[in-house]
Amino acid sequence: MMTLRDSFSSNLQVSGKITSERNVTSNPNDLRQHGKDEGPHEVAEPQVVVYPQNKEQISAILKYCNKNKVPVIPFGAGSGLEGGSSAPTGGVCVDMQSFSKILRVSPEDFDCTVEAAVTWRALNFFLRDQGLWFPVDPGADASLGGMCSTSASGTNAVRYGTMRENVLNLEVVLADGRIIKTAGIKGRARKSAAGYNLTNLFVGSEGTLGIITEATLRLHAIPEKQVSAVVQFESARSATDAVVGILQNAVPIARIEFMDELTVKACNAYSRTSLADKSTLLLEFDGSETGVREQIDTAKSVCDDNGGTEFRWAESPEERAHLWKARHAVFYATCAMAPNTKCYTTDVCVPISYLPELLESTKKDIEETGIFGTVVGHVGDGNFHTMLLFDPNDPSSFAKVHAVGEKMALKAIELNGTCTGEHGIGLGKKKLLLKEHGEDCVSAMKAIKFALDPNNILNPTKVFD
Amino acid sequence: MMTLRDSFSSNLQVSGKITSERNVTSNPNDLRQHGKDEGPHEVAEPQVVVYPQNKEQISAILKYCNKNKVPVIPFGAGSGLEGGSSAPTGGVCVDMQSFSKILRVSPEDFDCTVEAAVTWRALNFFLRDQGLWFPVDPGADASLGGMCSTSASGTNAVRYGTMRENVLNLEVVLADGRIIKTAGIKGRARKSAAGYNLTNLFVGSEGTLGIITEATLRLHAIPEKQVSAVVQFESARSATDAVVGILQNAVPIARIEFMDELTVKACNAYSRTSLADKSTLLLEFDGSETGVREQIDTAKSVCDDNGGTEFRWAESPEERAHLWKARHAVFYATCAMAPNTKCYTTDVCVPISYLPELLESTKKDIEETGIFGTVVGHVGDGNFHTMLLFDPNDPSSFAKVHAVGEKMALKAIELNGTCTGEHGIGLGKKKLLLKEHGEDCVSAMKAIKFALDPNNILNPTKVFD
Repeated sequence: MMTLRDSFSSNLQVSGKITSERNVTSNPNDLRQHGKDEGPHEVAEPQVVVYPQNKEQISAILKYCNKNKVPVIPFGAGSGLEGGSSAPTGGVCVDMQSFSKILRVSPEDFDCTVEAAVTWRALNFFLRDQGLWFPVDPGADASLGGMCSTSASGTNAVRYGTMRENVLNLEVVLADGRIIKTAGIKGRARKSAAGYNLTNLFVGSEGTLGIITEATLRLHAIPEKQVSAVVQFESARSATDAVVGILQNAVPIARIEFMDELTVKACNAYSRTSLADKSTLLLEFDGSETGVREQIDTAKSVCDDNGGTEFRWAESPEERAHLWKARHAVFYATCAMAPNTKCYTTDVCVPISYLPELLESTKKDIEETGIFGTVVGHVGDGNFHTMLLFDPNDPSSFAKVHAVGEKMALKAIELNGTCTGEHGIGLGKKKLLLKEHGEDCVSAMKAIKFALDPNNILNPTKVFD
Repeated sequence: MMTLRDSFSSNLQVSGKITSERNVTSNPNDLRQHGKDEGPHEVAEPQVVVYPQNKEQISAILKYCNKNKVPVIPFGAGSGLEGGSSAPTGGVCVDMQSFSKILRVSPEDFDCTVEAAVTWRALNFFLRDQGLWFPVDPGADASLGGMCSTSASGTNAVRYGTMRENVLNLEVVLADGRIIKTAGIKGRARKSAAGYNLTNLFVGSEGTLGIITEATLRLHAIPEKQVSAVVQFESARSATDAVVGILQNAVPIARIEFMDELTVKACNAYSRTSLADKSTLLLEFDGSETGVREQIDTAKSVCDDNGGTEFRWAESPEERAHLWKARHAVFYATCAMAPNTKCYTTDVCVPISYLPELLESTKKDIEETGIFGTVVGHVGDGNFHTMLLFDPNDPSSFAKVHAVGEKMALKAIELNGTCTGEHGIGLGKKKLLLKEHGEDCVSAMKAIKFALDPNNILNPTKVFD
């Protein structure tokens, strides 16, 4: 019997679309690497991995798969957490790694267009000399196409927004192979009322509606002055009360991140920081020289009122970089706390006033299980994460951490929040999506999915069944 | 033969959903008032106007209309400009005026939930004493439901975003009568990655996908200090060059509005301002005392470099209110310049660097026609409007202004922009939508429309055919 690889490879090669044998593979190593992401979900391998070189090839792949009802799973950096890259129904993994060009930067318009595999760190490295930057910064060095797919955000969202607010246009290959731009063939206006907002439909659709090949992104000016500080508190509640106070004082803070005492402990060990093991806020202020001073004065007085310690400053670029590198490495720092474990990480987001309550109850739940777990978060948005270590050889260990995550998500939904602020639904949160949105709403989502992908070839079994 | 009104009224009354005779009417005055908006499009009357009192009644109306394939046209404040409220295929106009309650304000979370007919001015009047405000401010006192539908924006978008960035959740009645929340049953988290972003699909869908009954909105703290200023220039190009410069200097300006010399003339006459008839920028700075001073210093030096006059200040709340009231009244001021004319107004949006070119060519086109027309705009976003007076009894007069508008839109599309930044497509710009997005993209929009409204009952003939 002809394998999917043979059929795939011969068909597409015959039509001249995939020109090299290397571009289609069913090498076991490739399959295994492409069947998972960084989350705790089981590996589920595709049957074939293809490495298209341009959008026309993706179009040909999708036409073929649509005709033959073959599942298609797009693959970016593989840094997702909810199983978005796995292939539980087999099929073709489309590895986007060749889409690595920064196509255009228009400094005068504060925007750029990149191919899907460009990572946010690579983009910022490229932009640095032009006084510009792209602010969305998830923990891993994710690809910008993947970040569009999962509606990623990060530490700067409180000030600069998430992917939703920073994508101006997308090039997408639809299930039937048609290639569209979501916001006009040449469009990069900062605002538009022309037709349905397809850009923000594809942002967050997790590869289920089309394959993103290019993104046009908003850029921002690197501020004149950036200062970071660390302040510590006696309890998680005092720290989050301080966050609420800073926001209520309308401080245009650039970043405000929470780490609980165990996260600090993990950071000290992994990233060689030297902080007391206490509830901690990392703050960043940006703007003009005097603007920053003013913001700091207000933030300090709010922190004082909530029993915060003196601010520890990180003013030089090196000190700032060290601090934020440690923050971005929290996932790895947590993992390093117990060898031979795996890390289950999940995120929720609630209105800011419910944050202290949810944070306290979650920490209590973690303590009760006796497992090691850290709590960190983009608290300025009401968004936080738990990272829980489990024994991959003990199903009851995974069951425990999963139960903590589910309880946290259900409580977040109850507190007017969402079961995921930035990780997405993937395979892991389909039931929670239903709980949060209700059946009628999810069935509207499914109607849209069916309209754009009637054969359900695009990343099937993700987001909903 | 039974009229639609009789059939409608008796069916819904029998089912106990519409309880009062007054709630269903085919009074000619009502029909006429509901068959148009403030744009130049011809009146097209519905057959019946209903005034539902709650969402369950809307659900019953839609179930009935869906079953009987009767067109349904939602009606908010009637202040739209592209014919969104007209009923070219007849049917039932659903007047939302009873949905006038502010349901909840959570100052600590900076959000609120309002019913669809609450206007942005009414909301801000209500919020004032709590130190909060909602920033989206189109010219007319539009309803917030209507503003969601058209993806409205206004003078504050450069700093605070448009409706897209300021709606957290919507309650929507779908074509088949089901009632959904677009971002979770109780959801009001500031960010979410849970499922498709239906909120931003409904924002801007112009009543073609569902009827919006409630909106959960982001609020903002009223800044400590707000200062407005006027600065004038020798040419439209110098003024727009100054705008580009201010943005490139990363001044977090709150508002930056352009008026050409004819707009100033109209304002002086209508709103009793006393400005020279020159290209003019209205600026507003907000923030802390010293933050505002700093912003002003930078903006002044950029304006000086482009030959701007001294700033004229409006620092007291009364002076500021007078200035911005005059800006908001520009439409009426233009209309008042020639009695017995009507005003054709249209908007486009381009990347900021193309603004001077498009503004100059548009002013030249207006001059060549010999008609009176003003040009104003939210230039910080690259978004501007022309308001062109035509003789409603002379078809060739309308043809002329329409040609100017179309040329401007086509040029905006060519310059990587959009044919509408904030008015919407409605009846007036369907061909331009196709030109801007291409057939494949518009057909994806239509597939979504068909998925959610298979009988095409919701605001048919709008956005696309």
